[in-house]
Amino acid sequence: MEVNGQRLLENISGYAQIGKVAEIGVERIALSEEDKQARDLLKEQMLSLGLEVHIDRLGNMIGLRKGKQDLRPVAFGSHLDTVYAGGRYDGALGVLAGIELIHTLNDQGIMTEHPLALVNFTNEEGVRFAPDMMGSHVYSGQASLESILSSQAYDNPNDTIGSRLKVIGYDGNAEPGAIAFDSFIELHIEQGPVLEKEEIQIGVVEMVQGIHWTRYTIKGEANHAGTTPNEYRKDAGYGSAKIIKFIGDYSREKENAVLTTVGSIEYVPNTINIIPEQVTFTLDLRSTQAEALEKAQIEMDEYIDRVVEDEGLELLTEKMVRFKPVHFPSEMTNLVEGAADNLGLTSKRMPSGAGHDGQMMNHCCPSTMIFIPSVRGISHNIEEFSKDIDVVNGANVLLNTVLSRSGGDS
Amino acid sequence: MEVNGQRLLENISGYAQIGKVAEIGVERIALSEEDKQARDLLKEQMLSLGLEVHIDRLGNMIGLRKGKQDLRPVAFGSHLDTVYAGGRYDGALGVLAGIELIHTLNDQGIMTEHPLALVNFTNEEGVRFAPDMMGSHVYSGQASLESILSSQAYDNPNDTIGSRLKVIGYDGNAEPGAIAFDSFIELHIEQGPVLEKEEIQIGVVEMVQGIHWTRYTIKGEANHAGTTPNEYRKDAGYGSAKIIKFIGDYSREKENAVLTTVGSIEYVPNTINIIPEQVTFTLDLRSTQAEALEKAQIEMDEYIDRVVEDEGLELLTEKMVRFKPVHFPSEMTNLVEGAADNLGLTSKRMPSGAGHDGQMMNHCCPSTMIFIPSVRGISHNIEEFSKDIDVVNGANVLLNTVLSRSGGDS
Repeated sequence: MEVNGQRLLENISGYAQIGKVAEIGVERIALSEEDKQARDLLKEQMLSLGLEVHIDRLGNMIGLRKGKQDLRPVAFGSHLDTVYAGGRYDGALGVLAGIELIHTLNDQGIMTEHPLALVNFTNEEGVRFAPDMMGSHVYSGQASLESILSSQAYDNPNDTIGSRLKVIGYDGNAEPGAIAFDSFIELHIEQGPVLEKEEIQIGVVEMVQGIHWTRYTIKGEANHAGTTPNEYRKDAGYGSAKIIKFIGDYSREKENAVLTTVGSIEYVPNTINIIPEQVTFTLDLRSTQAEALEKAQIEMDEYIDRVVEDEGLELLTEKMVRFKPVHFPSEMTNLVEGAADNLGLTSKRMPSGAGHDGQMMNHCCPSTMIFIPSVRGISHNIEEFSKDIDVVNGANVLLNTVLSRSGGDS
Repeated sequence: MEVNGQRLLENISGYAQIGKVAEIGVERIALSEEDKQARDLLKEQMLSLGLEVHIDRLGNMIGLRKGKQDLRPVAFGSHLDTVYAGGRYDGALGVLAGIELIHTLNDQGIMTEHPLALVNFTNEEGVRFAPDMMGSHVYSGQASLESILSSQAYDNPNDTIGSRLKVIGYDGNAEPGAIAFDSFIELHIEQGPVLEKEEIQIGVVEMVQGIHWTRYTIKGEANHAGTTPNEYRKDAGYGSAKIIKFIGDYSREKENAVLTTVGSIEYVPNTINIIPEQVTFTLDLRSTQAEALEKAQIEMDEYIDRVVEDEGLELLTEKMVRFKPVHFPSEMTNLVEGAADNLGLTSKRMPSGAGHDGQMMNHCCPSTMIFIPSVRGISHNIEEFSKDIDVVNGANVLLNTVLSRSGGDS
């Protein structure tokens, strides 16, 4: 069975108008006015497809479709929020392929054994409110709702998750996790270059890399750039450059066994002729191997301590995120691989480099993910793009995986 | 002869209330409301001491005191503007010691052979409007007034030097440089740790380091931190860290023959999980040796080119400032040394690490500078401090140097 590809592509284009940036980009920050508009449209589409809509206290949206039996629903979906200046596929693809899946089943008059659940998780990106993967984190029972509701926006402490949910009208009544799923399947763009480079149509996601996010603040002493000999300097900028070079070298020497990125930095006072007195930077560290991840974290922290001591600096370390690698069960990945095979699509078992709702959901039910190629591997960028044919292929694999799992293909 | 030390210290405290920050800090950005207040007070003091006040088209303030003969004036002074969150001595000391000098001569009824000129130069710091040492740069005939008047504020292109001079009422009529000086003598805090460490009371400034300021912008490609293998990365952050480490190492290996500082940096998009697509940073490079300065600039630029090529990046280089080292004539430094000796003060011939109006003025008349110790070498910082005794010693050396040069000690 296949979805209506044209209808799916038109729906994706429609959502991409909400928060449109440049030609094909989208900026739809979680719990913003744009997020509300996209949610309203989704709710309308869910209702018109006959789904029973549940909004939980964290704003997660679930559209339920009855099954022949009173079983746990087979769930699928992703998120409608984006990063700043992001793309139209990251997140929305998984939700809108879900809409298309339901539409196709309705068209064909197919009733599955299990009920089905289409999910839009709140704040997957975490760019304005920490942590990321927020909705699925709470839904899967790994974080406390109350503390999450008081999470403050980076740019305005008066905006909290709780207050923004009220403002946009998505502070629902259901308890997150109250509807226990049979399983969860997430279709997503790869966001990396592997499928495109290797000319493979479908990624069968076996696991998600572990992620460590850490914020380091290094304190030195502000002083005049022209009059302070090196032996009297406590230069937080020079110290941080040594560290950032080490962090980059480390990953390159390990040939990608760990990936390291220093994506953000701030100098204080940030003036051309003053030695930086304070530097704050973040480390994004990932690996598919739990041991390599731990070892890298320890070795980097040891190096940082050494530089801080050598340069007469002080250090403040904030552990922001510590997620171990997640392995998806073969009962799920085999279904995805089988669906791709049946559709005559080439596929490859691979890890996910990015964090996703699917990795969170695997904590509470067997989960997996389906990847489609990203052109030039670009994402979190207004140039993010996936080809129409790949988008439709992905939706077809999702449809057939869901049918297998929910007993709709018998 | 000696100044009235108590009166000088009280006057410095008085000016430090204008733009006061924290306990002893001062923020008086050039052409701000605070700068206007300090200028108004200076004008009032100049007039009350019987000086003839000239304001030129760039806002430079000159208070003229008649001499016995119709000779070129012996000039002295500095600047009343500060950096953001700066101190009370950097600049103001040289101007207010000048006020005190005139006051002392008036008290004693002394008339010098040469006229005297007390100068407050506009925008020495250059923190809001480029370039720094602006007033003396133009006064000494090394920059065009018209282009300088249209210099825009970093934080607001609608604010120009010309428009701000009008707003604060210091757009005078005189042509900068119209009053030709016999010589120029600037009293200033050292802004470095040498005099304090070596327990010397007076620095006889023989030369000013050459300064190169350069802004580098490195362009890579934004991409997802978790999904982009190293071989596909164009990481402007990693590239810049290599460069900033090299720049710091370079100076440390040369044992201060050149001083290097990377004081400011900006990442774009500056997000924890996105590879930086653009990094802009500044290099402050200084040396007392013209050859070493040129060689260092070339070697650093070569290294930067190499990193940019190795990492698949692009480079934009903006040369902001290129000042060669300036040597003060011995006819001037000998006067300072002699004045210190006669007052029983220990002194040391030394270079200035920072740029000063004195180095600009040496282009149009024999100039020199007098340094006093800075506690812990700290300046451009609200903790900047010099001891009362050192402040008074410095003013006494200025007084006696001016008397020697102007024929007032005969």
